[in-house]
Amino acid sequence: MKILSFESSAVSAAVCLTDGQKLVAASFQNCGLTHSRTLLPMAEQLLDNVGLTPRELDGFAVAAGPGSFTGIRIGVATVKGLSFGTDKPCVGVSTLETMAYNLIGMTGTVSCVMDARAGQVYNARFRLNGTGAPERLTPDRALTIAALGEEIAQNGEILVGDGAHLCYTKLTQTCPHLVLAPAHLVYPSAYGVAMAALPRFLAGETQTAQQLDAVYLRKPQAEQMRDRQKNGGNVK
Amino acid sequence: MKILSFESSAVSAAVCLTDGQKLVAASFQNCGLTHSRTLLPMAEQLLDNVGLTPRELDGFAVAAGPGSFTGIRIGVATVKGLSFGTDKPCVGVSTLETMAYNLIGMTGTVSCVMDARAGQVYNARFRLNGTGAPERLTPDRALTIAALGEEIAQNGEILVGDGAHLCYTKLTQTCPHLVLAPAHLVYPSAYGVAMAALPRFLAGETQTAQQLDAVYLRKPQAEQMRDRQKNGGNVK
Repeated sequence: MKILSFESSAVSAAVCLTDGQKLVAASFQNCGLTHSRTLLPMAEQLLDNVGLTPRELDGFAVAAGPGSFTGIRIGVATVKGLSFGTDKPCVGVSTLETMAYNLIGMTGTVSCVMDARAGQVYNARFRLNGTGAPERLTPDRALTIAALGEEIAQNGEILVGDGAHLCYTKLTQTCPHLVLAPAHLVYPSAYGVAMAALPRFLAGETQTAQQLDAVYLRKPQAEQMRDRQKNGGNVK
Repeated sequence: MKILSFESSAVSAAVCLTDGQKLVAASFQNCGLTHSRTLLPMAEQLLDNVGLTPRELDGFAVAAGPGSFTGIRIGVATVKGLSFGTDKPCVGVSTLETMAYNLIGMTGTVSCVMDARAGQVYNARFRLNGTGAPERLTPDRALTIAALGEEIAQNGEILVGDGAHLCYTKLTQTCPHLVLAPAHLVYPSAYGVAMAALPRFLAGETQTAQQLDAVYLRKPQAEQMRDRQKNGGNVK
């Protein structure tokens, strides 16, 4: 089952082609260029290099959020276009869940964290048992770093994601057993997207281009400001 | 320090651009095409995507062996050409060592193994202590799977590399504590090449294009056969 997966929920952009669990080709960029310039050309080159066209694939997967509003929108829009254009199914997966898949092989509880600004992180927690799929312990949520710290205070929790260093620095006094994920596994990867999406493709739990949607958890900053202005500054 | 690193010592081909420890861009292919068709175009596209030319880099790194004779030759020849063409330094690193760098974050002893055919593997063993660089326990060597089995019989040794599944299957009866590396970290990576090469770039222990050479450990099959014919079939 050939799946093309996209990850553009933070500063880096990544695309990979998998066949079942096998990684066939991958491309990654973290060079400061906007995803709207990099993401689709990366996919086109990748498929061209392996001699395939989008119509020859079985489906498309994307990290659908939470994350950077712009990044998520570009990733989801790209996969909506590919899915609609080829009439193939797609799957949107939690960006946080894809990070837990990066750490398969490790054992313990893991906090996937993305910097949500204003003292908050997007977070979900998972249990890793070495070889199997990560077991979800919480839903995806936005919470303060302090609240996360209270929850994991006594754990040898592994931190992964673009908020990992932030949480490690802020919480190391109150949570003395925290562990940072290895540097090469700390950021979301397209292969993590593929592995989080594969069980849903196999179970037939796919989406159409129309059904696929971004999952923001919070309203974009601009909408929050507009709501505040509308309500005289009293409502967040 | 911007380094372009190449890995083509087995069936897959990979290129990455790093700036210090930061992964800036990466490209990977495992689709059955010959490295002579894929490797340099991947590098050209990667640099083009991030808006750099070879002359703007600080050096080049390559997995110089052991591994597939043809794959190693193509990788080394590519880096020799880039180094000579740009007058920038290069570093050849042990393919086996690059695999140990894939597993940084784990703890224990690791056997890096590549299938060397005829019942043999290319192997080196390292100690991982979680976050630091892998500590080398043996030189790179070619030995029988049985001999490796005797050496690691009582260990909870982690197996990594394209010979990992082979060794796991052959040795699981006599070495009951073996562990397979996670599927997404089991093969050599261009980032592993970069991380093995970085300390040598920083220490100024680089090579010129002329000095860089492949490290085969054993003679190519064709030379072994020619030697045998010369010596009446009595010498390996």
